[in-house]
Amino acid sequence: MKDPNCIFCKIANGEIPAATVYEDDDFRVILDLGPASKGHALILPKEHAANLFELPDEIAAKALVVAKKVGKQLFDGLGCDGFNLVQNNGEAAGQTVFHFHMHLIPRYKGDTVNVGWKPGELTEETKAQVLGIFGK
Amino acid sequence: MKDPNCIFCKIANGEIPAATVYEDDDFRVILDLGPASKGHALILPKEHAANLFELPDEIAAKALVVAKKVGKQLFDGLGCDGFNLVQNNGEAAGQTVFHFHMHLIPRYKGDTVNVGWKPGELTEETKAQVLGIFGK
Repeated sequence: MKDPNCIFCKIANGEIPAATVYEDDDFRVILDLGPASKGHALILPKEHAANLFELPDEIAAKALVVAKKVGKQLFDGLGCDGFNLVQNNGEAAGQTVFHFHMHLIPRYKGDTVNVGWKPGELTEETKAQVLGIFGK
Repeated sequence: MKDPNCIFCKIANGEIPAATVYEDDDFRVILDLGPASKGHALILPKEHAANLFELPDEIAAKALVVAKKVGKQLFDGLGCDGFNLVQNNGEAAGQTVFHFHMHLIPRYKGDTVNVGWKPGELTEETKAQVLGIFGK
């Protein structure tokens, strides 16, 4: 289903033009207009899903295969030094358009892309709490 | 195939113990010992692949479905505000262990996790170059 108010539905389905590097029945991969680095692309499913949790399993299953395929072409074609996949869910995680998308981010030595964190500590208390969520 | 020198092979296959929240025939999901946030987990395939590009398609296809399923349990169980998937390939992209892994990072309003970038500009020159890689 498409959401008539969703800009990524319109882009994914070709109603709004975008620089498309890959397309199949389920996905369109476009170049990001505000790229983190040269070659930054977005995988968009054609059917609307607000985030990972709404994505049907069969589309999720295909998404990472597309990421691998298109990512390898970007990596080889641009001669980059590394490659990040980033997928944000919710405003607190940096999601700004509420249609599932996965960022393909080519990386270059000395670039200014910021994907990292200061490692914390896994306390016994947190470990027990999280394992408890999974019944372990 | 397992790599006898790979610590994530040993963890994924249970030779080195880790706090396991999920396991199936192909994957183990463990809590990160240096978490970005409470509940930070890692999806590890049991077979060795250094990065996304080495991951067999059938394992890639399952990985995002596992991420969705385990991520939803973390999200609901921890009551977090957002959720990032991050997958790094190559030292320049922040990869430190060269066995494919996907970070599941619960996010909380006001946390200090750093997953972002300063948006650049998609120039006509770059657009033409990248489209050219894809024969478009």
